[in-house]
Amino acid sequence: MITEKIGNRIRELRKETGLSQEKFAAKIGMDRTYFASVELGKRNISIVNLEKIAVGLDVSLAELFLNI
Amino acid sequence: MITEKIGNRIRELRKETGLSQEKFAAKIGMDRTYFASVELGKRNISIVNLEKIAVGLDVSLAELFLNI
Repeated sequence: MITEKIGNRIRELRKETGLSQEKFAAKIGMDRTYFASVELGKRNISIVNLEKIAVGLDVSLAELFLNI
Repeated sequence: MITEKIGNRIRELRKETGLSQEKFAAKIGMDRTYFASVELGKRNISIVNLEKIAVGLDVSLAELFLNI
């Protein structure tokens, strides 16, 4: 399912930043438990939150969706 | 704003299909007025609906977000 694919991709890119879920969520001003559930693929995440995450990962939305 | 950027991109790609908003929305099983408001940039659209639109446009999500 797309929510799981994007969750895995976000986790992969977030790990490359070296930040924990907690530190990354704080960096982008997102609730930690919400962000954790996004990585788990449990959220039908919105475009505004996707953009927030992409900006925090320093990737474009196109890069975020690469191979998805 | 990201909702407007993606709305314009969707409209651009949808016009390339030659289908009207009504016909395209029907093709992907989406409410016509909701789809119209997505193209107008008025919706904080979710990943599941973005995927539905991308599939209907026959593009990947990465292509959908190209240059956005």
